[in-house]
Amino acid sequence: MDIAFIGLGNMGSPMASNLVKAGHNLTVFDLSEPAISDLVAQGAKSAESARQAAASADCVITMLPAGHHVEAVYLGDSGLLASLSSETLVIDSSTIAPEVARKVAEAAVAKGITFMDAPVSGGVGGAKAGTLTFICGGEQKAFDRSRPILEGMGKNIFHAGPHGAGQVAKICNNMLLAILMSGTSEALALGVKNGLDPAVLSEIMKQSSGGNWALNVYNPWPGVMEGVPASKGYQGGFLVDLMNKDLGLAMENAVTNKAPVPMGALARNLFALHGAQGSGGLDFSSIQRFYYQE
Amino acid sequence: MDIAFIGLGNMGSPMASNLVKAGHNLTVFDLSEPAISDLVAQGAKSAESARQAAASADCVITMLPAGHHVEAVYLGDSGLLASLSSETLVIDSSTIAPEVARKVAEAAVAKGITFMDAPVSGGVGGAKAGTLTFICGGEQKAFDRSRPILEGMGKNIFHAGPHGAGQVAKICNNMLLAILMSGTSEALALGVKNGLDPAVLSEIMKQSSGGNWALNVYNPWPGVMEGVPASKGYQGGFLVDLMNKDLGLAMENAVTNKAPVPMGALARNLFALHGAQGSGGLDFSSIQRFYYQE
Amino acid sequence: MDIAFIGLGNMGSPMASNLVKAGHNLTVFDLSEPAISDLVAQGAKSAESARQAAASADCVITMLPAGHHVEAVYLGDSGLLASLSSETLVIDSSTIAPEVARKVAEAAVAKGITFMDAPVSGGVGGAKAGTLTFICGGEQKAFDRSRPILEGMGKNIFHAGPHGAGQVAKICNNMLLAILMSGTSEALALGVKNGLDPAVLSEIMKQSSGGNWALNVYNPWPGVMEGVPASKGYQGGFLVDLMNKDLGLAMENAVTNKAPVPMGALARNLFALHGAQGSGGLDFSSIQRFYYQE
Amino acid sequence: MDIAFIGLGNMGSPMASNLVKAGHNLTVFDLSEPAISDLVAQGAKSAESARQAAASADCVITMLPAGHHVEAVYLGDSGLLASLSSETLVIDSSTIAPEVARKVAEAAVAKGITFMDAPVSGGVGGAKAGTLTFICGGEQKAFDRSRPILEGMGKNIFHAGPHGAGQVAKICNNMLLAILMSGTSEALALGVKNGLDPAVLSEIMKQSSGGNWALNVYNPWPGVMEGVPASKGYQGGFLVDLMNKDLGLAMENAVTNKAPVPMGALARNLFALHGAQGSGGLDFSSIQRFYYQE
Repeated sequence: MDIAFIGLGNMGSPMASNLVKAGHNLTVFDLSEPAISDLVAQGAKSAESARQAAASADCVITMLPAGHHVEAVYLGDSGLLASLSSETLVIDSSTIAPEVARKVAEAAVAKGITFMDAPVSGGVGGAKAGTLTFICGGEQKAFDRSRPILEGMGKNIFHAGPHGAGQVAKICNNMLLAILMSGTSEALALGVKNGLDPAVLSEIMKQSSGGNWALNVYNPWPGVMEGVPASKGYQGGFLVDLMNKDLGLAMENAVTNKAPVPMGALARNLFALHGAQGSGGLDFSSIQRFYYQE
Repeated sequence: MDIAFIGLGNMGSPMASNLVKAGHNLTVFDLSEPAISDLVAQGAKSAESARQAAASADCVITMLPAGHHVEAVYLGDSGLLASLSSETLVIDSSTIAPEVARKVAEAAVAKGITFMDAPVSGGVGGAKAGTLTFICGGEQKAFDRSRPILEGMGKNIFHAGPHGAGQVAKICNNMLLAILMSGTSEALALGVKNGLDPAVLSEIMKQSSGGNWALNVYNPWPGVMEGVPASKGYQGGFLVDLMNKDLGLAMENAVTNKAPVPMGALARNLFALHGAQGSGGLDFSSIQRFYYQE
Repeated sequence: MDIAFIGLGNMGSPMASNLVKAGHNLTVFDLSEPAISDLVAQGAKSAESARQAAASADCVITMLPAGHHVEAVYLGDSGLLASLSSETLVIDSSTIAPEVARKVAEAAVAKGITFMDAPVSGGVGGAKAGTLTFICGGEQKAFDRSRPILEGMGKNIFHAGPHGAGQVAKICNNMLLAILMSGTSEALALGVKNGLDPAVLSEIMKQSSGGNWALNVYNPWPGVMEGVPASKGYQGGFLVDLMNKDLGLAMENAVTNKAPVPMGALARNLFALHGAQGSGGLDFSSIQRFYYQE
Repeated sequence: MDIAFIGLGNMGSPMASNLVKAGHNLTVFDLSEPAISDLVAQGAKSAESARQAAASADCVITMLPAGHHVEAVYLGDSGLLASLSSETLVIDSSTIAPEVARKVAEAAVAKGITFMDAPVSGGVGGAKAGTLTFICGGEQKAFDRSRPILEGMGKNIFHAGPHGAGQVAKICNNMLLAILMSGTSEALALGVKNGLDPAVLSEIMKQSSGGNWALNVYNPWPGVMEGVPASKGYQGGFLVDLMNKDLGLAMENAVTNKAPVPMGALARNLFALHGAQGSGGLDFSSIQRFYYQE
């Protein structure tokens, strides 16, 4: 299939790369020349603008940093929606506010274009390995058309509901993840303060009702689990700054919907304090250090 | 083995019952006559005091509501430790402050008696089914002696560390559990406020990084999961009042150890508000209602 | 002076009324006919549109519910800025996000028009009595021109800094106020739980280091202080819904600025829970009831 | 009057000193020899034990670090209550849990001895200047007898209620104070993040509804107010460690009474994190630094 891929950052580049490997004809665009060259070396074609990349594509995929980038690419007189054929399938994998996703979706639908929001989880590692999770929002028909393409980049492909629902589900999940990570770090620190071995305590809680993703597969205490960021100086993984971006989206969503999220709001503020103290570039499991410094 | 079992409440009665079934000779004591009669009908012997029950026992097990009950039973001139043979194995399964557990343990050790704190998790259901989790604190030798007895009442038997460590691990686990439950309820409520289906959102988060015990096996949203309290009007299970008792122990422990537990403290206060609004007798997953009322 | 006043809601109407009393020639506009008639009866002229009202005014004052109303009135081809003379003084007293205030200010400045954000505090009571506090953002020159006009409606006129600073200062103040009110309510409830008399405790804290605006002049415990909403069934005053609007602006601002506001975020969520439980139309000191129900 | 003063720490020494100046005959005791010598040099008599100091006193005053010290001094076979005449007036100015205060009070009453809990606020500065606030719990008669003595050491003498009420009121006040200080610091930091001048913002909030003790007389931003700890590198004043002690008492009290204190609990945890990061020996207004580091 002819696919235009726009946005070749840390996530977009390996995603596009996997689509090439899956046999698609890719035309790519980004503001970074080296990112484009890199994909061209892998077999993609390059374009000089988003519009040129999308000109003859059956499917357009965007992976951009924030909502205003997505609006800029799709909307307005020079946006993609103004020139795309109504048969194009448009998939936006950026993590943005549901309101913005819905706004762009409505503009697309008004022109008969099929649009889906499909934010991902799984990080750079998942993007490279082709094991991302896609959380999709849009019509069933759009989901059915997108699935085979997304399977070239990911393993779990969920349909969360109508336009914007993919963004909502991602926001909810990542807010919960922040709660799990800070809660787990706090419980481990409390145990250690009482003289317990963090590995023993982890094992007990894992097999009891304290079990959760952060504890079970991403243990924040250095040395308890091999291969995770905590055992590599909190390098790599999912950065505190990115978690803060997602928590910001969750807070804005909660304010818009008058939804009470006391635990999520506290987690947001703990991660904000942690980031402000200089840890923005560390993996988010480094919140453990915020609770306990040896 | 000759076992004295003291404390036949909602938890103690089925635990004692399982020990009878496992073939032990039980002598039981409680302030409630009917509780004693019930066990006698199942084959236990009755005693008129804790001291009489323990007189010729190889092992004494206590299951009492609070620390001051444990102190009253074991310490002082008329306490059990004053009369027990040094060969007795003493297991206290009450959930109490680690400091009190250590105080009683030290008094026992001073008389050459083997003591272990072994609080449980798994609730009344687990007590009846004999599938409780025991989280033990004490010497390795004490743990080895206790394990075969505890296996008559539970499935997972953990050794958390020295005296008091069983209580610490339980406190940490249950504080984390309260965080998981309130966090999960909050994320589900936020999704529903945005129009998502709670069952679909649950499934997505379960398979993503939001997965945790509360979401995966004890879903708080009515109707999402069969058989859990949320689908039975929040009846049965683990009461808000009991969660508040455990969270109180966690807070006291954090204060004593100068440990920061912001997430646990907030969860404690949300459950306290929920309880104060009249929900103390509901299952703790009813915190979902605190976030979202239809 | 010829003043155009746009937005005659609960706040705008009495503010406009005070300007008439102060001797200004007012031309008013609102979407509500009765609101206009009411002001006309007091001596104002009416207009059929914002643009008509502003046509020959020396000064335009707006008092609108939210940022998008302010944008709609001022910006775009049919907005006021497109038609106003560069000698007009524009004062926006709406409470909106600082970003929106800055955006409108910049558009005004680009046309040589003097603009000031001047949100108020003091509520409907202060608007009627002419004792509002104005917190202004803009150039010193704009502040000097505005002051004599604002003195017709208020008592304290502050200059917080450049464009947007008025909104920022109001957001900070009201976030702090929410913290004071919930903190005071919580301390009183804790004292009463311990058997103390709320009036005695209030008096002690007022004269000690717990003294604050909520405790000293707006006591939330029914009957402790005469004339305040708490002693009138929490009727009137500053509604929970409005506090939630301001707290929403504070949270969005904190997210935008990556600023940690854990206490403000918790207060926001307590007021959100309180509102969601049916108290949105009560005075915000009713948060006392959220803590303690007799 | 013949007064025995027991406990000559940072607070007790200047308090005793002021009683000497007020013309009382003091007999003092402490475990620190230099502290005793210091008071003797000012005209007090020394004793070799608390019991000896109290032997012929009309009034006994204690100022001790924690509840277990108070229990040790008064209770048991060798405690003061066993030997005091029933005409003695006993005043305990230590800050301890209300339960402990009530326990000692009841033991005193059982022997016909008049007892009052009278914790202070005002810090070392207030102790030296004789301007402490005393918050008293006990019978009216005891309060009337104590007032003239306390006036030798303080300025505001409050009667909060029956035995223990002094401690409760102090706990409530200091919990509220921690909320005021963290809330004020947070609001100032948010304003500064937005480019506001902290002095201007302080002035605006002080005269608006954000006014509170922390903002008005103990501003936490360096340089805004002269003479306060914030303008002296956060030296002196009321240490973070001591605030954490008082917040610990508040948390334990809230747990005991099943009282929800979400704001106080969060403040407690922010101060605990701040202390754990190395600021325990700074004035508590240094929480400002926790929010904002230049």
